[in-house]
Amino acid sequence: MRALRLTQWKSEPELVEVPEPTPGPQQVVVRIGGAGACHSDLHLMGEFEPGTLPWNPPFTLGHENAGWVHALGEGVTHLRVGQPVAVYGAWGCGTCARCRVGVDPYCENPAEAPVPSGGGGLGLDGGMAEYELVPDARHVVPLPEGLDPVDAAPLTDAGLTPYHAVRRSWHRLAPGSTTVVIGAGGLGHVGVQILKATTATRVIAVDTRPEALRLAEECGADLTVPSGDTAAEQIRDATGGLGADLVLDFVGADATLRLGASVARMLSDLTIVGIARGTLPVSFFGVPYEMSVQTTYWGSRPELVEVLDLGARGLVRPRTTRFALQDALGAYERMREGSLLGRAVIVP
Amino acid sequence: MRALRLTQWKSEPELVEVPEPTPGPQQVVVRIGGAGACHSDLHLMGEFEPGTLPWNPPFTLGHENAGWVHALGEGVTHLRVGQPVAVYGAWGCGTCARCRVGVDPYCENPAEAPVPSGGGGLGLDGGMAEYELVPDARHVVPLPEGLDPVDAAPLTDAGLTPYHAVRRSWHRLAPGSTTVVIGAGGLGHVGVQILKATTATRVIAVDTRPEALRLAEECGADLTVPSGDTAAEQIRDATGGLGADLVLDFVGADATLRLGASVARMLSDLTIVGIARGTLPVSFFGVPYEMSVQTTYWGSRPELVEVLDLGARGLVRPRTTRFALQDALGAYERMREGSLLGRAVIVP
Amino acid sequence: MRALRLTQWKSEPELVEVPEPTPGPQQVVVRIGGAGACHSDLHLMGEFEPGTLPWNPPFTLGHENAGWVHALGEGVTHLRVGQPVAVYGAWGCGTCARCRVGVDPYCENPAEAPVPSGGGGLGLDGGMAEYELVPDARHVVPLPEGLDPVDAAPLTDAGLTPYHAVRRSWHRLAPGSTTVVIGAGGLGHVGVQILKATTATRVIAVDTRPEALRLAEECGADLTVPSGDTAAEQIRDATGGLGADLVLDFVGADATLRLGASVARMLSDLTIVGIARGTLPVSFFGVPYEMSVQTTYWGSRPELVEVLDLGARGLVRPRTTRFALQDALGAYERMREGSLLGRAVIVP
Amino acid sequence: MRALRLTQWKSEPELVEVPEPTPGPQQVVVRIGGAGACHSDLHLMGEFEPGTLPWNPPFTLGHENAGWVHALGEGVTHLRVGQPVAVYGAWGCGTCARCRVGVDPYCENPAEAPVPSGGGGLGLDGGMAEYELVPDARHVVPLPEGLDPVDAAPLTDAGLTPYHAVRRSWHRLAPGSTTVVIGAGGLGHVGVQILKATTATRVIAVDTRPEALRLAEECGADLTVPSGDTAAEQIRDATGGLGADLVLDFVGADATLRLGASVARMLSDLTIVGIARGTLPVSFFGVPYEMSVQTTYWGSRPELVEVLDLGARGLVRPRTTRFALQDALGAYERMREGSLLGRAVIVP
Repeated sequence: MRALRLTQWKSEPELVEVPEPTPGPQQVVVRIGGAGACHSDLHLMGEFEPGTLPWNPPFTLGHENAGWVHALGEGVTHLRVGQPVAVYGAWGCGTCARCRVGVDPYCENPAEAPVPSGGGGLGLDGGMAEYELVPDARHVVPLPEGLDPVDAAPLTDAGLTPYHAVRRSWHRLAPGSTTVVIGAGGLGHVGVQILKATTATRVIAVDTRPEALRLAEECGADLTVPSGDTAAEQIRDATGGLGADLVLDFVGADATLRLGASVARMLSDLTIVGIARGTLPVSFFGVPYEMSVQTTYWGSRPELVEVLDLGARGLVRPRTTRFALQDALGAYERMREGSLLGRAVIVP
Repeated sequence: MRALRLTQWKSEPELVEVPEPTPGPQQVVVRIGGAGACHSDLHLMGEFEPGTLPWNPPFTLGHENAGWVHALGEGVTHLRVGQPVAVYGAWGCGTCARCRVGVDPYCENPAEAPVPSGGGGLGLDGGMAEYELVPDARHVVPLPEGLDPVDAAPLTDAGLTPYHAVRRSWHRLAPGSTTVVIGAGGLGHVGVQILKATTATRVIAVDTRPEALRLAEECGADLTVPSGDTAAEQIRDATGGLGADLVLDFVGADATLRLGASVARMLSDLTIVGIARGTLPVSFFGVPYEMSVQTTYWGSRPELVEVLDLGARGLVRPRTTRFALQDALGAYERMREGSLLGRAVIVP
Repeated sequence: MRALRLTQWKSEPELVEVPEPTPGPQQVVVRIGGAGACHSDLHLMGEFEPGTLPWNPPFTLGHENAGWVHALGEGVTHLRVGQPVAVYGAWGCGTCARCRVGVDPYCENPAEAPVPSGGGGLGLDGGMAEYELVPDARHVVPLPEGLDPVDAAPLTDAGLTPYHAVRRSWHRLAPGSTTVVIGAGGLGHVGVQILKATTATRVIAVDTRPEALRLAEECGADLTVPSGDTAAEQIRDATGGLGADLVLDFVGADATLRLGASVARMLSDLTIVGIARGTLPVSFFGVPYEMSVQTTYWGSRPELVEVLDLGARGLVRPRTTRFALQDALGAYERMREGSLLGRAVIVP
Repeated sequence: MRALRLTQWKSEPELVEVPEPTPGPQQVVVRIGGAGACHSDLHLMGEFEPGTLPWNPPFTLGHENAGWVHALGEGVTHLRVGQPVAVYGAWGCGTCARCRVGVDPYCENPAEAPVPSGGGGLGLDGGMAEYELVPDARHVVPLPEGLDPVDAAPLTDAGLTPYHAVRRSWHRLAPGSTTVVIGAGGLGHVGVQILKATTATRVIAVDTRPEALRLAEECGADLTVPSGDTAAEQIRDATGGLGADLVLDFVGADATLRLGASVARMLSDLTIVGIARGTLPVSFFGVPYEMSVQTTYWGSRPELVEVLDLGARGLVRPRTTRFALQDALGAYERMREGSLLGRAVIVP
């Protein structure tokens, strides 16, 4: 079968022929319907020196996948061939306290995982191929009725990541609250949809690109604010001077973190989702009292089930552009130049 | 001024002339914009023998009120005359642990309240008059911009009561969950709106009246089910056999409680809001494991602030019919005969 | 090996010779160190007609087990032979939403479980034998350092069941709160220990037996109250008239439920753990506002890990009496006559 | 009466004669039984230039007070003269959403407070005098039976501040969890007591001073670790390599924050209570996933009620040294030189 593989660090991936996988005990092979292309793939291609990450090329890209069950390994009895499924992409050890409840991204025993701190498309073969081997059936999540695998694929990361970041702050998002979404890109615009679908918080979206702000508005943002010197002031004005109860920073640069901290109120959350390598200095008199600052990474398996429900009911619908497998490199090209709105999905 | 007063138990209220109130220290007089008419007023008129309740007529009816600040007592500095406000209707002692955080309906020292276990329209003079005296300024809640007192009035009970019942179960209402609303009347249809505005739960509404089911649908119910022998089966089918995560019984009769318990799943809430004097027998093998059964009564002051925000943003909009003060008796008449959809608001 | 087996309904169990089990893929055989004897075993022996439960004898008794890993099936790599372990006793389907997070007692797909709504000692072979076959390695929980299997055994039910009932109400158990424990028997006295170890709630224990009240006192109860006409009054007095924030009814008879409801305050939990077939009628004016009534059944796998930690640190220590396997019938006899304080543990 | 007053910035306080206060409407005068001396008083004396804080000397010191009701202003009916009470020290505007539920430290309208962002002993006259005027009766909290005002005084800050910091993380402190307390001084040693009284978390205390570690041990710390190069390693070892679920930094210097972040696990809280002007740089790859970093400031009025309950039951008992009013300067002297273990209480 054909697969888009990263063959070495600091290189472009290549479309090559590889053998079809076969499932061992407790494993599943999924025929891929869609595989999302993620900004972190660009980091994978360009940034890492050998030895930086706990695993190495070659491997097939694609950590955001859905499709249909193709073959079941011995002992897997709760799935059936042909069933539409999503692949939960964070593959932990399976036996630590966190994995036992499906919080694989925070696995406490990564050395015992199929690949340390990685998964399909991240050290192991992912979904940018006709088939993907999933090394434990628990990562295979049946799709609810009405949800197509191509639409489901981006929900497993571009949906799940903002979903987790929103859900952990639900207790702050009562009516009257305000959430600021910084960065209305591949994840951010889905974050706006999730906020509107699951809470009554007021959503203010911030971005540098007018077309991203328009997308945020279409997703339900109550107010959009262009990045820049007056952004903080506009946001504080829009909250009657109180500030935001939640800031979701989908960029994560120094400037966006600074903006976030300057518009958050006391007793709020500032959650760093984006990986633009920014740093926020936190000190007693430097930030509002009890503004909690934290990163989040991906989401849990039970949360994926919830995101898929939102997708099946049309409440969350990532903006996507589809590419054939042979055009995947072109998709990454457009992501690099910033000309792609929403998410690219590779359809093998 | 004119006021609609209950002058004795087991009688019709009368429209009479009474003196305008003047505020003492820490008190406020509100010029009434709207006063909701509630089914519990009918109970007040018809059901109680002298000595049953801790207070007695005469008093002006109307416990669901909003208007404008008319006069401020000594020491009230945070309000201004003319300001549009809602009146929080549950008036507790003000100093017990519950009242200190605005949970007056569960006041633990009712003997020290302005009237024991009551309030304006419930033992003390209420809002079906040109002015209402509010005996403590903390019960006066400024309206957010864009919310008219006539629209705000029903939010203080027909909005607040279902809001509290929904809010306490938010943790069960993740995507994929189901809520069953039994009774889509004056409170129930607002309950549907609140569920849709603040969560992504699927809402199933049950009622005997086709027009109430239509109203529930307009409010966003995902499915409507007529009361009757097959209701439980239809609901279980609609939840894939699992049952509901939350049942809100806005009727509270034996039959509706039985229906509720038969469609709730394990680890769910069955909340009794309606006062139709039903009883549910709870036993170890008689109900699903960890189905929590409880009543709720009204809501807290902070919750009223949140409901008003939903109202101001158009996310919750009780269906109302307006009546002049002199037509209030007609409004109650129509409530008695069941020909009024939604809520009646008296506009003095 | 020898095993204490129930061979038919409505009969005494028999000590017989059976073959040693061998583990299939993903399975584990545990050499039993201790197997707790539970009142529900007495129900099993005496109460059920054929066809009442979804499974039938013969099977080995004992659903409260701990010991050492004896043999590992194919694919089990995270355990090692000889390791001291507890057996999590609720064996659900393993793939429904509840089982995925270790809440097997509330499995939503019991027909797909190893035995429907049962487990080892409950339809399948349990721990009153030299060895027990555990059909899925996820039910095998390593013991923390310092905890002996004989001491660990009763923690898996007599510890886990009250732990779950307490833990779900932690949010009500702030300093100043009161918890009433009705029934200081095999589970109840452990409930007192758990309350004292994990919260600062005041604990009031109620029982008919003076020696059970003494045991409750030794476990840390702040006040003990003999069952009877004045119990409710004593409890209300001890709470300054407010009533309890949590009532744990480890009996579950009509009279204890009535007592519980009469001493619970508004916004409280009344949790039915005992199975004495009582019924509580719940109605709007019949119980305090927002007193939540619910049953609970056993606990989750993550909760078992927490209980074992309490055991290893000496914070929870069920009172036990040890019996050899050949004396197990005598243990049940003493449980029947009520002459055993705390829990009986069979040591094969 | 005599009062210890700060008469100008950057000066020592002076013991002077001032008139006894008289209460206006809704106000209360408290006869002081004890007034705690706090490190922040030293900051007040030494650090601030005129114009730095929103208020200025002269004012009487002491923001940690308890005593007996001495005189009641008009309209205060729920207290009686002679009643032992604590003074809740954070005095907000009283009408914003936060003050309405007793969270005055996070008042959103400080310009409307009796003094902006301050209180008695912080811009207004405090408790280091024979009497203190409390400008709103809601700040006067009756003492539970068995708690002496001298013992109660330090609970209002040295108790309340760590209590709030602990309580907000209760959800992380299940059995099996670990909490690291950095700094076992005036607040830290009380933090250890609170953790032990209200949770089953394992407590590791860190300090530079052996006598502080001994005090922590007496307060129930499970392990004590001297500050230094190997502290982080010792803590990680003690947690099986996982790290802490909660770090409470009662120092708040660069080095302690760095230590805290290095021993916290994923999904933890790092809470900055101490004001030693340190800064923690937070970035995506620089701290564990979902380690939440936040400051806290004081606690809420309902929390004070809970702390007083712990105090009355002997579960929390700050180590104190008593000083007469004329010796107060000596107490501050000993705090400066670090020779005082626990808290100094001035007894007028």
